[in-house]
Amino acid sequence: MSQIKNIRTRLFEVPLPEVLSDAKHGDHFYFELVTCTVTLEDGSEGTGYTYTGGKGGHAIKAMIEHDFTEALIGKNGDDVASIYDFLEWHIHYVGRGGVASFAISAVDIALWDIKCKKAGQPLWKMAGGADNSCKAYCGGIDLMFPLEKLLNNIRAYLASGFNAVKIKIGREKFEEDLERIKAVRELIGPAITFMVDANYSMSVEKAIEAANAFKQYDILWFEEPTIPDNYKGFAEISEATGVKLAMGENLHTIHEFQYAYEQSKLSFIQPDASNCGGVSGWLAVAELSRKYNIPVCSHGMQELHVSLVSSQSNGGWLEVHSFPIDQYTKRPLVVENYRAIASDTPGVGVEFDWEKLAKYEFKG
Amino acid sequence: MSQIKNIRTRLFEVPLPEVLSDAKHGDHFYFELVTCTVTLEDGSEGTGYTYTGGKGGHAIKAMIEHDFTEALIGKNGDDVASIYDFLEWHIHYVGRGGVASFAISAVDIALWDIKCKKAGQPLWKMAGGADNSCKAYCGGIDLMFPLEKLLNNIRAYLASGFNAVKIKIGREKFEEDLERIKAVRELIGPAITFMVDANYSMSVEKAIEAANAFKQYDILWFEEPTIPDNYKGFAEISEATGVKLAMGENLHTIHEFQYAYEQSKLSFIQPDASNCGGVSGWLAVAELSRKYNIPVCSHGMQELHVSLVSSQSNGGWLEVHSFPIDQYTKRPLVVENYRAIASDTPGVGVEFDWEKLAKYEFKG
Ligand SMILES: [Mg+2]
Ligand SMILES: [Mg+2]
Repeated sequence: MSQIKNIRTRLFEVPLPEVLSDAKHGDHFYFELVTCTVTLEDGSEGTGYTYTGGKGGHAIKAMIEHDFTEALIGKNGDDVASIYDFLEWHIHYVGRGGVASFAISAVDIALWDIKCKKAGQPLWKMAGGADNSCKAYCGGIDLMFPLEKLLNNIRAYLASGFNAVKIKIGREKFEEDLERIKAVRELIGPAITFMVDANYSMSVEKAIEAANAFKQYDILWFEEPTIPDNYKGFAEISEATGVKLAMGENLHTIHEFQYAYEQSKLSFIQPDASNCGGVSGWLAVAELSRKYNIPVCSHGMQELHVSLVSSQSNGGWLEVHSFPIDQYTKRPLVVENYRAIASDTPGVGVEFDWEKLAKYEFKG
Repeated sequence: MSQIKNIRTRLFEVPLPEVLSDAKHGDHFYFELVTCTVTLEDGSEGTGYTYTGGKGGHAIKAMIEHDFTEALIGKNGDDVASIYDFLEWHIHYVGRGGVASFAISAVDIALWDIKCKKAGQPLWKMAGGADNSCKAYCGGIDLMFPLEKLLNNIRAYLASGFNAVKIKIGREKFEEDLERIKAVRELIGPAITFMVDANYSMSVEKAIEAANAFKQYDILWFEEPTIPDNYKGFAEISEATGVKLAMGENLHTIHEFQYAYEQSKLSFIQPDASNCGGVSGWLAVAELSRKYNIPVCSHGMQELHVSLVSSQSNGGWLEVHSFPIDQYTKRPLVVENYRAIASDTPGVGVEFDWEKLAKYEFKG
């Protein structure tokens, strides 16, 4: 065993190339990247991280610095599972999801980075080893893009080697959603996989109407039609329309995933290791997904999830998100034959370019 | 309408007179008090607050300062409901419970303070007006107290005018819990109301055994026998034992309360305005409680909850918690004829003694 010696937490406000919007999270001007570098007494070091759409980063950093760091120093950094369990209970009173899940994620990913480096193995092998590549699709935060810009965006996805795309829906007028869906399907033709994402902006009734209207366009899944808290509402939509549903990015605890598996009649699950407890949290969700026979996909953070989704025997689709994270890591996402390829470097496979990030660091 | 002009957030680390322990939150050395003072353009001012058992306060303060303040300035401070709704969605991605619920609570209570002051009415009238007093009990954080100290604590509760008491259970050996329950009942006699609280430390099976063993001691309720996430587990315990169950302090969103109402077969609900969305959040839970015919009680924060529990037509029991908050407000809790009496001063009825608090303020 080797004790945790030091934890360094940093917050970066990384600008987006343009304002991105979806139905419920409003406009994004920058994203927040919170990094957490853990050093053990034996000299080994790993970096974990989480991110947000622009809010909550300061709270996440404050929790790691004020509530976690001192409590973790001296603990066995090699025992990732025990630390995960410790943190869950340590922060329980203000936890069970929300900011605590993001903060725990950053620490957990750092410890997995150390674990993989010590074993000399890449994450895809340590996390399951089923494969080193997975299906991948591009998802835009494109709800407010004019139609022509939306289509150009889709063209760019296809040109960069993808055969699956996702767009946002949930505009004020549903006819506009439908027009956009139709135009995208016409552009991409029948062979390209196509998903839509409403970011929980619809009532159950409206989602049923919407799904019935767009199913003629061969939509692989309808993501977050309604609020994630309404687990049974998802099942109603599924039963009423036969359209396949997906969610997960807003579920933060294993209990929330359990409710979704049991009550929501999902066809795909999309845990996000940046907000459901890091690699440990994500793998717990993946483990459960096999019990319910649901392919495990991902939300955001493709640079890390590529290794996790690939590693699972029931790995589904990797979301390739539009935050420009690839500009700040040493290994931009690799896509070959329409599949995303996991890093073979020992560790979680995500190394930041600290020099490039430096100018965006928040200095109190 | 009057726009929000300024929000000042402060964090105090208030020492406890002695280390307090329960089954799952560990040792408490101090509590964190986060205050939030809102000033409107018309000069009116109100103070809200939240507290924690010692962790999360920095994150709560960071969220109010970095994510809420700028977004709220200029908004109509008189429209409390709209601001509540705005904040829920504003912080949704890192929210739906956890730290976000605590942060929203502090802001909401400040706005209710302004609302009541402007109306020249005390909170108990503005929140429902059913009564200005309610039943109250003393609850200790006394799990690790030796038996004689526990009994002395109970004697002190009775001497200070209460006719209902609650103790913690969940010691390593259940025989010790049982011995303590028996000793307390023998001390207080049959006329005093008696509750127990396991702070979700038991499995469903263990809780069933425990409830069956202690029901001979006439326990009004068994609080948080198992983890709050296991809504159906609560129902199992209720059905298997007939012992009445209570929870609520760890439920942070109206959705979580809805699951509990529907699935847990509770006899009492205990929302905490410091962590379920302030006065607005608490009243939403109270509203639902009538639909399910469950008396609405409270957790912690008695100086504020006395007005809320009193105001409701189905008000239940006020918990009088052992954090020494009364030393830092201008109106220590008033108890007459075993009932807690709400403040008649316009506002939420909680005014802090800033001078006394000053020395505990956290300065970066
Ligand atoms: Mg999505
Ligand atoms: Mg309790």
